[in-house]
Amino acid sequence: MAVFNVELKKVVDDSYEIELGYELYDRLVEDIKGGLVGNIRKFAVVTDDIVEPLYAAPIRERLENAGYFVKVFTIKNGEKSKIRATKEYIEDAMLDSGFRRDCCIIAVGGGVVTDLAGFTAGTFGRGVPFINYATTLLAAADASVGGKTAVDTPLATNLIGLFNQPEKVYIDINAWRTLPRRQLCSGMAETIKHACMADREFFDFLSENLEKIYAFDKDACEHAAQCNCRIKYSVVMKDERESGLREILNLGHTVGRAIETVSGYRLLHGEAVSIGLAAQAHLSRRLGYMTDDEVSKVEELLKRAGLPVLIPDYIDREELVKKLYTDKKVRDGKLRFVLQKGIGDVVCFGENSYAAPIDEQTAREIINEI
Amino acid sequence: MAVFNVELKKVVDDSYEIELGYELYDRLVEDIKGGLVGNIRKFAVVTDDIVEPLYAAPIRERLENAGYFVKVFTIKNGEKSKIRATKEYIEDAMLDSGFRRDCCIIAVGGGVVTDLAGFTAGTFGRGVPFINYATTLLAAADASVGGKTAVDTPLATNLIGLFNQPEKVYIDINAWRTLPRRQLCSGMAETIKHACMADREFFDFLSENLEKIYAFDKDACEHAAQCNCRIKYSVVMKDERESGLREILNLGHTVGRAIETVSGYRLLHGEAVSIGLAAQAHLSRRLGYMTDDEVSKVEELLKRAGLPVLIPDYIDREELVKKLYTDKKVRDGKLRFVLQKGIGDVVCFGENSYAAPIDEQTAREIINEI
Repeated sequence: MAVFNVELKKVVDDSYEIELGYELYDRLVEDIKGGLVGNIRKFAVVTDDIVEPLYAAPIRERLENAGYFVKVFTIKNGEKSKIRATKEYIEDAMLDSGFRRDCCIIAVGGGVVTDLAGFTAGTFGRGVPFINYATTLLAAADASVGGKTAVDTPLATNLIGLFNQPEKVYIDINAWRTLPRRQLCSGMAETIKHACMADREFFDFLSENLEKIYAFDKDACEHAAQCNCRIKYSVVMKDERESGLREILNLGHTVGRAIETVSGYRLLHGEAVSIGLAAQAHLSRRLGYMTDDEVSKVEELLKRAGLPVLIPDYIDREELVKKLYTDKKVRDGKLRFVLQKGIGDVVCFGENSYAAPIDEQTAREIINEI
Repeated sequence: MAVFNVELKKVVDDSYEIELGYELYDRLVEDIKGGLVGNIRKFAVVTDDIVEPLYAAPIRERLENAGYFVKVFTIKNGEKSKIRATKEYIEDAMLDSGFRRDCCIIAVGGGVVTDLAGFTAGTFGRGVPFINYATTLLAAADASVGGKTAVDTPLATNLIGLFNQPEKVYIDINAWRTLPRRQLCSGMAETIKHACMADREFFDFLSENLEKIYAFDKDACEHAAQCNCRIKYSVVMKDERESGLREILNLGHTVGRAIETVSGYRLLHGEAVSIGLAAQAHLSRRLGYMTDDEVSKVEELLKRAGLPVLIPDYIDREELVKKLYTDKKVRDGKLRFVLQKGIGDVVCFGENSYAAPIDEQTAREIINEI
């Protein structure tokens, strides 16, 4: 018997910059010229069919004018594209276009595109750099910080993927204007979640400036985008691999994700999260962590943001309860919920523990309340 | 315009142990009990249909007896299984069996299984730990050090994958006994490659002890396995991401991989590499880096190892040249070859540059020599 030691200890620097602004195409090209991704001259722009003519085309044009080799790979818009088959399609199309290891992927779009492109970049040639050009409020709120990339499978959401950090993120607030109203509102749900779980001041700011954001007021949008980045970053930095603290980002998501599935994706992710936020607020109130007034404030803000706080009639509440309690995460008949503590904080149940085990009957009663 | 900095600098320790020995099942189970993968209690054993009854079954049995939850996922043996569809199959089967993030994958088999399982582990739940239990000489020589995992696609070999390090590697020399003779010989090609490129003493050892290794002499096999690990490690450690030095591991692979493809996989990987080693030796001689005697010594050892050094008749040499020179790596009509310098060294062409640009006509002449 013999033992051989492979020593692989090293310092990894995955730091990156998020730039918020209006029409950041020229900034992107300047950064690339300035060496953002070294000497790479080949760029694969991954986008969806809605975003392509609006924002991918101008980026392609500017990169080509600067002398780079650029191909655009367009997927169908929507969550249903976030699957392994779409990743394969991008891979094969890239290989067929001559892309090998010396390339960079630029994701132009919302969360689906950035998740999928980030994952694809992580495994193409065993990893090529990628850049996110985020065009939605949801991507600005959620997908731009944290490095989580993934696809869905028939049996699980987001379970096949990678932690993979981009070289840089651009948040183009101007692009929010072209979002369908329903998508814009859906993106606001994660923003409100951030405020509810971590920042009372931001919650008050949203309450006062919601209409300004929806009117694309520059200062209000920038402030909201920055708060989103700061809050998510402060959580992710402390817990990059989701071992404890990061769990609080699941506020509203336990019920939210189940509703999204049971609705057959009739509800957008943010809409489902909004209902989930209402559910956890009711649960927090019942357990003494929130007052009636605080619950109302949360529900009011969600409603003003154009988001639902009640379970739609077409959803069978009992089916929803069953869905929740047959989840693989159920232990000893209990499912873990992150709970809001007042507004701007979450309940901590001991070191690195931010979720309360809730039994099926209690969950049923809460679900029947909303 | 506003900029937000995400600071993600950290020390990563991917170090691991390689244990060489005979029937290491009990060692594996002891290590797991001792906390090799923390508190994980769920194990997905990935193997192929030949290895399953021989080596996966006893591992499963021992783990189950120790109280762990174990499922075996069996793929069809052979390089053709190293594709994205097989990865999907394993993922779906694991999800269906209740595996989520709190599991560990144990790869039991040769290079195909360890490559595929290592890649699957890297993206399952955004990364779960994996252990390699290598049952072939090829896996011992090549796959156990370096962290390269990948699948093939119709357009490219090994281009979709990850750098992902195992928690530990077990090299079960006893398992070599059950390898078909042709597979054993094929595995010897990478071993001889290591000797040719980096270690004259090891080359002499192989020349003297080849028959002992093929008779599974414990000391000879252990020494060969250790030399393989040490040589590959010394290269990989200096260049984990394949930017320069690691290129020397491609010795014999430029022609080798092309022959493997043109043969329609009638040649095993090692057989193709053996012919590739002969080709680069001829090229090295022509360029003055090897003597006639040295070239003969290399060819003799390959032949004694049961490996081919001539291109089989069924391969069209001109098709092979065309295949080489339509490769994406051709630049200015030249293809880069790593060249042996005497025996036990490679030619260095300047800092971090270990490959010579060779034109099509020279390559044609060499290919017509062998």
